[in-house]
Amino acid sequence: MASVLPASNTSMRSDRNTYVGKSFVHVKNPYLDSMDEDVLYHLDLGTKTHNLPEMFGDVKFVCVGGSPNRMKAFALFMHKELRLTDSEEDIKDICAGTDRYCMYKIGPVLSISHGMGIPSISIMLHELIKLLYHARCSDVTIIRIGTSGGIGIAPGSVVITDEAVDSFFKPRFEQVILDNIVTRSTELDKELAEEIFNCSKEISNFPTLIGHTMCTYDFYEGQGRLDGALCSFSREKGLDYLKRAYNAGIRNIEMESTVFAAMCRLCGLKGTDTCIMMELVFLLQESCRDGIETTKETAVLSLKQMA
Amino acid sequence: MASVLPASNTSMRSDRNTYVGKSFVHVKNPYLDSMDEDVLYHLDLGTKTHNLPEMFGDVKFVCVGGSPNRMKAFALFMHKELRLTDSEEDIKDICAGTDRYCMYKIGPVLSISHGMGIPSISIMLHELIKLLYHARCSDVTIIRIGTSGGIGIAPGSVVITDEAVDSFFKPRFEQVILDNIVTRSTELDKELAEEIFNCSKEISNFPTLIGHTMCTYDFYEGQGRLDGALCSFSREKGLDYLKRAYNAGIRNIEMESTVFAAMCRLCGLKGTDTCIMMELVFLLQESCRDGIETTKETAVLSLKQMA
Repeated sequence: MASVLPASNTSMRSDRNTYVGKSFVHVKNPYLDSMDEDVLYHLDLGTKTHNLPEMFGDVKFVCVGGSPNRMKAFALFMHKELRLTDSEEDIKDICAGTDRYCMYKIGPVLSISHGMGIPSISIMLHELIKLLYHARCSDVTIIRIGTSGGIGIAPGSVVITDEAVDSFFKPRFEQVILDNIVTRSTELDKELAEEIFNCSKEISNFPTLIGHTMCTYDFYEGQGRLDGALCSFSREKGLDYLKRAYNAGIRNIEMESTVFAAMCRLCGLKGTDTCIMMELVFLLQESCRDGIETTKETAVLSLKQMA
Repeated sequence: MASVLPASNTSMRSDRNTYVGKSFVHVKNPYLDSMDEDVLYHLDLGTKTHNLPEMFGDVKFVCVGGSPNRMKAFALFMHKELRLTDSEEDIKDICAGTDRYCMYKIGPVLSISHGMGIPSISIMLHELIKLLYHARCSDVTIIRIGTSGGIGIAPGSVVITDEAVDSFFKPRFEQVILDNIVTRSTELDKELAEEIFNCSKEISNFPTLIGHTMCTYDFYEGQGRLDGALCSFSREKGLDYLKRAYNAGIRNIEMESTVFAAMCRLCGLKGTDTCIMMELVFLLQESCRDGIETTKETAVLSLKQMA
């Protein structure tokens, strides 16, 4: 894999990252520290307008998902779980000044929406990573909580991703930088995936597995669906593709995992420059009917064909 | 350019498209008409749950943009302009059951949000095109009203796109279908662009031009910005890229135009299987501060360097 940065740029890491025993979130941009102000446009936050260390310095967990409603529901759920003393009404959207993303803070947990697709989550991640860097956050774990289409698994299953792959089943993210293509690794923290998997055993009636996750740029033509406005392949060809994906160890398909894995890994969002990624197929939540329907549909279809 | 469909599939076009004098919106999917029900998951609409011809049959114009707030503001503006007799309070989000997109109908005009990036607008376009097809809409014009970063033009300029190009300055959209890459044309209706340009002359203090629009998958590393969490190129290299883009006729950069042009063109969203695409850089609207800032920034930067 080509490195994202030339060797001469390795000095750009802030020395904040060398404090003993702590892993600080870092950027890989030599220009950032010399900027007079850093405006996080799409989060409606900035280094001159907000005291980011005070607002976010204690963040240890970041949970991200596509839907704003779902991430608000998750924030309210976390508030209950953490038994915080402040009122539920105090949980306000920190990014209310923009409608690009929403963000809630519940104690040490941030809950943020990212929209749909690689470009949308990528903008949010650039600004989130800068936010955590400016706030001097350390030892941060990030978890994506998304909906996805299952392949050969029971509807409603939870897939914990051990490897994010692209449409060609390769564990890579191809980032276009100006007019160059740079390939980035999408390697994930397998130990952490195992840890989370072990936790899931304590919850009954919640089928959970570890598998590869395929990330596509398109929901319809890219995922073998026959119900888009455009469909140029046969039913058989679509099923053959899904079968080949299954044989390559892929258990679900979504639209954000490769860039999520690549960016978090590059910026130290979990321990030794790794990050974790989980795809949780949400159940029984009105706000994600689309995902559930899709999951059911694809899973039932593929189960039938793969028996 | 490779055709999206094999020759044998040309029969899949509905005969609805042959009515004399009318150009119907069509799908290119041989499976759709045989489906018992078509659920437009991300719009919270469906052929069994909604009477789509009754709800949408009179639609002639579709305006799309990234931000939900802005598309609501646009709907209210259109309501005023069209002097419709119904109350402003009657303008409700038709997709209120989902938070993926929002949609408003004002007489023959639909106003829809599409989020950020190619994958996000692509999901919406698949479902919008199916919606217009099911509703038997004809002679539909679609206009994207977006924010963008300008190259070598004055801040606040309006760019009407005559050609959408990718990061390599090519007028193409590479669609991954299963594990194949299909190249689609991003040709636009130049006559219509001229027509709109002529209209703009009637509005003073509103600098407008026709130019190529570059569409990228990434806001930071892909557009030569030096303020992302990751930046591996030098200031000089970034400026050189923008200069080369300017010399190739590109006047602005955004993140949706290539797939928008490709899909609309394929499905007859304007006259003879073509579509129009306009990038309007909104001005003086609170809800798009990010876009304005970006435009100002990039434009000023590039103007300085290109003088």
